[in-house]
Amino acid sequence: MTVNIFDTPDVQDFLTAVAGLEQAGGSERAKRILHRLVSDLYRLIDDFDVTPEEFWSSVSVLNELGQQTQFGLLAPGLGFDHYLDMRMDAEDEARGLTGGTPRTIEGPLYVAGAPEAEGVTRMDDGSDPEAEAMWLTGRVRDTDGQPIVGAKVEIWHADAKGNYSFFDPTQSDYHLRRTILTDAEGRYRARSIIPSGYGVPDGSPTDRVLKLLGRHGQRPAHIHFFVSAPGHQHLTTQINLAGDPYTYDDFAFATREELVVAGTRIEDAVEADKRGFDGAFTEVVFDVALTRTDAHALQSRHARPRALQDATAG
Amino acid sequence: MTVNIFDTPDVQDFLTAVAGLEQAGGSERAKRILHRLVSDLYRLIDDFDVTPEEFWSSVSVLNELGQQTQFGLLAPGLGFDHYLDMRMDAEDEARGLTGGTPRTIEGPLYVAGAPEAEGVTRMDDGSDPEAEAMWLTGRVRDTDGQPIVGAKVEIWHADAKGNYSFFDPTQSDYHLRRTILTDAEGRYRARSIIPSGYGVPDGSPTDRVLKLLGRHGQRPAHIHFFVSAPGHQHLTTQINLAGDPYTYDDFAFATREELVVAGTRIEDAVEADKRGFDGAFTEVVFDVALTRTDAHALQSRHARPRALQDATAG
Repeated sequence: MTVNIFDTPDVQDFLTAVAGLEQAGGSERAKRILHRLVSDLYRLIDDFDVTPEEFWSSVSVLNELGQQTQFGLLAPGLGFDHYLDMRMDAEDEARGLTGGTPRTIEGPLYVAGAPEAEGVTRMDDGSDPEAEAMWLTGRVRDTDGQPIVGAKVEIWHADAKGNYSFFDPTQSDYHLRRTILTDAEGRYRARSIIPSGYGVPDGSPTDRVLKLLGRHGQRPAHIHFFVSAPGHQHLTTQINLAGDPYTYDDFAFATREELVVAGTRIEDAVEADKRGFDGAFTEVVFDVALTRTDAHALQSRHARPRALQDATAG
Repeated sequence: MTVNIFDTPDVQDFLTAVAGLEQAGGSERAKRILHRLVSDLYRLIDDFDVTPEEFWSSVSVLNELGQQTQFGLLAPGLGFDHYLDMRMDAEDEARGLTGGTPRTIEGPLYVAGAPEAEGVTRMDDGSDPEAEAMWLTGRVRDTDGQPIVGAKVEIWHADAKGNYSFFDPTQSDYHLRRTILTDAEGRYRARSIIPSGYGVPDGSPTDRVLKLLGRHGQRPAHIHFFVSAPGHQHLTTQINLAGDPYTYDDFAFATREELVVAGTRIEDAVEADKRGFDGAFTEVVFDVALTRTDAHALQSRHARPRALQDATAG
């Protein structure tokens, strides 16, 4: 049966009470946002004749998402992270902050406090000799092409099974997580292993929501970066490795054409030896351009709650 | 900085991809509802210039709500349960199903499988001799005033501390939860104790959301009922006991004037003795009228997920 009650005075008065608009305390901004949010949801229930069964099943899915700490996993799947990026891109354009390496989503798996190195480091602990060796390097410059010395390059990526340290208890602390300060030429260099892509856990609430939409929950192989330097805009980005079946079909919508990088397989023993490898390896080069800004707030990353309180399966 | 990107083709195309509208599998209804829901949320972010910090703080609150299984507690606080009741009231009116006892919200604390009795039962286990004794009774009739014999009256309520069995592990199984089949006069009778009201747990995510709105999370003392009989519409309702400071200020918006019941204190020793009490008690009378319907779907309660999977602190 179809009824429409949203526009009645009873419902509108009720929404005023629900949002606390007539209460003295609380936050005016929270009240206005909640009033809008709850109004939108009430109208949706009315327009789609959402049944009590559908409503309460959704409440159960919300509880399950929280129990598995998956709101930070469903959010990119529903495009929120990319949408916030689109808004920040538009803000940058309005400010004239253009020409730098594009941002893309952070994801929920960053952990603060990784070991720092000057210029060069090793990220893997050697525990997976079967993994393809990776030499990851690049230069950080400003948008005029001048190298930035001492830029902070924070890198985190999955292992060959698609799992992240901290979220995967079998890995050592800070495995595949490092902070590198660029050298006199603006260069960073890291020995590591080629990461694999991964999917949201099978049968998890995020997976079930995506399946209802006819979608998958797979991400291509990728490497996360925070890059920052005084006087420059903080960059949150990722590179996708070319050739992964999901490179252009990421459930989290993080792929950007400028951020797809093809690795180069190098089998030359002299080159391998120079970098400390026993045999062939894949070189991945990612150069970064940072835009200049005096605005202090733009020079560091957003104050999002991070690390273990937002933990999700890798 | 204020930017508005919602109406751009980029965002609209993106929403089509997010909702899987171009994917073959999944559920068409889920896609249309999710497309609407996510669109509403994107537009809200744009209109209110929601910052990444605000967005990610909200994601953390959602995870916490799920971890404490509180979406079923926040939902009535944001009026969803009452709004669904308003919609069902409008549906009843459109169907001509009027004149019965009003419905009100179920809440998340029903547990199936309570002991059944014919006509009369005792609900409390005697473990709280300090609690005020309650004699709860009433008659179930149809809207023409004819008694309904063998109607199923399911009753559940909190103890004198405002806690519910199952959700409070200190109480015995099914304490203050009973099913009574009405006698030849349509009457049910229960010996029990007067329940207390309760509040959402202090500092819990639900409490924090309500405080942002300048609201409290208190419920008045109340008693839950499911009443059903073949050929009649299933009734989900509650009574509020008159005189509680929150009788007309329930955070869950369940109060309806017709459902406020004043207890009568009876000190007469003969009356007490007739009901098995040692001393004074409070009599609470709640008569119920059920509307007739041949529609089978209306004769039983909604298929909401219930009991322990939706458990919240009482």
